[in-house]
Amino acid sequence: MNIAQTFNAALIQLKHGDDIAQYIAKAAQQGANLVVLPELHDHAYFCQVKDTINFSLASPIPSSVTDHYSQLAQKHAVVLVTSLFEKTADTKFYNTAVIFDTDGTLVGKYRKMHIPDGPNYYEKFYFSEGDLGFKPIQTSIGKIGLLVCWDQWFPEAARLMTLAGADILVYPTAIGWEPTDTSDEKQRQLDAWMIIQRAHAVANSVPVISCNRHGFEEDVSQSTAGIDFWGNSFICGPQGEILVTTDDSESTIISAEIDLSRTAAIREVWPYLPDRRIDSYDDLNQCFRDKK
Amino acid sequence: MNIAQTFNAALIQLKHGDDIAQYIAKAAQQGANLVVLPELHDHAYFCQVKDTINFSLASPIPSSVTDHYSQLAQKHAVVLVTSLFEKTADTKFYNTAVIFDTDGTLVGKYRKMHIPDGPNYYEKFYFSEGDLGFKPIQTSIGKIGLLVCWDQWFPEAARLMTLAGADILVYPTAIGWEPTDTSDEKQRQLDAWMIIQRAHAVANSVPVISCNRHGFEEDVSQSTAGIDFWGNSFICGPQGEILVTTDDSESTIISAEIDLSRTAAIREVWPYLPDRRIDSYDDLNQCFRDKK
Repeated sequence: MNIAQTFNAALIQLKHGDDIAQYIAKAAQQGANLVVLPELHDHAYFCQVKDTINFSLASPIPSSVTDHYSQLAQKHAVVLVTSLFEKTADTKFYNTAVIFDTDGTLVGKYRKMHIPDGPNYYEKFYFSEGDLGFKPIQTSIGKIGLLVCWDQWFPEAARLMTLAGADILVYPTAIGWEPTDTSDEKQRQLDAWMIIQRAHAVANSVPVISCNRHGFEEDVSQSTAGIDFWGNSFICGPQGEILVTTDDSESTIISAEIDLSRTAAIREVWPYLPDRRIDSYDDLNQCFRDKK
Repeated sequence: MNIAQTFNAALIQLKHGDDIAQYIAKAAQQGANLVVLPELHDHAYFCQVKDTINFSLASPIPSSVTDHYSQLAQKHAVVLVTSLFEKTADTKFYNTAVIFDTDGTLVGKYRKMHIPDGPNYYEKFYFSEGDLGFKPIQTSIGKIGLLVCWDQWFPEAARLMTLAGADILVYPTAIGWEPTDTSDEKQRQLDAWMIIQRAHAVANSVPVISCNRHGFEEDVSQSTAGIDFWGNSFICGPQGEILVTTDDSESTIISAEIDLSRTAAIREVWPYLPDRRIDSYDDLNQCFRDKK
């Protein structure tokens, strides 16, 4: 495959209920070669509550749902990153991101490996832990290290994708504030989220795209104050430098030119990877090392 | 050992030639329980050139050099983090950080594991790669995950220290700008350096102290324009939030109250560690995974 070194990357920051097809068309019209959607974009964020009725939202892959996005990718000739609720033939459920190439081909999927579970985010109730490992997906714009939301807090995930040749890391995500938190606490959480993803860019010398939803969604059980999804989607370059970002308040398309050749240039000046002490990293596959 | 949950942490940002003993006394006078010095604080940053004459700067551990710092720690009743050029009995050389407790006891040392090598930073010429692994050092103010400079670019090092029970990560460092770089490039480098260390705090929910040198030091070979050490030492909390920082232009003591109980509180709300996919991390001890 002939991979372009530069391309236009767009992410679509959405709130639940937005017309996704229309936004994809607009992004393509603005010149996007890659279009990224937020996590679980087809639904309200149903994981706020534990209710078996929500399993009916899941679909097989492939299905009419993937056919729909395949057609949009082909129609607009974009590499399209989607995030779907997958149901398998043996009735397992996954939080699965799926990529379609410019000709509509479903080129690969990633099943979210790190699954959160806690108030407002009962994902372990719905999703099995991903079973496909950390494998980048080859597309016509490069090898995409596709990860999802909670994965963003784990440097291991970013590293494993990079070690497997990812040219860029892409995170569909759905994260927000608890409305009752103080504004200081909200700022710390948002900053931590920006910092850690930008740090994955730094550590691995690859660009990062993080596409979040925005807007308030209630907890239908009324047992919490709901989630105020914090937007602030961004694209950064391989030094973690912000190329483009948004705020928490709007449905919008933001885009940046990505030059994949910068990764190699930066790695020559900041050669982290060759200095990794792989002889001393075995315990990274341990929970705790306090026995030593 | 009875470990305090809160203590006053101070770092001393120095330029080469500053009176270190005087600064330690001043930090103690201001109430510091922990005092951190920059990397290789006893010398000009000699690694800018490859010259065997510099091996004469190294000392055994223990020696009169460690006796000196032991006495300062004891005199001022502080936990003191130093960074020394170590020579072993079998004539190996290490970039070694050493901690003295409040009674002057040398409680542990860490030999820098990740060694850089490139223009202005020819550390592989001088230092063997550390052979002691990533083991936190128990002190009277907590378990210190002591790492040095180049280590700061490796999430693996921070993680391994945390998995072994580190309460706080401490980085003596000596990093600066190439004077010929553009101001934009300088800003990207400084931002990357701040971001990745703050991200170690975020990923592991522990505070981080990074103590850098500042000031210009010439390349005595005149083959480069030298190093403009960028200062910007900082202390951040376990959400990566900056508690105190400085700029690039001054020798100064900065300090912050550290409350180690915040780590447990944050881990309850943001429980990353239990969700690590240790079943899928084996390849972190590989250079590249492109065979798969």
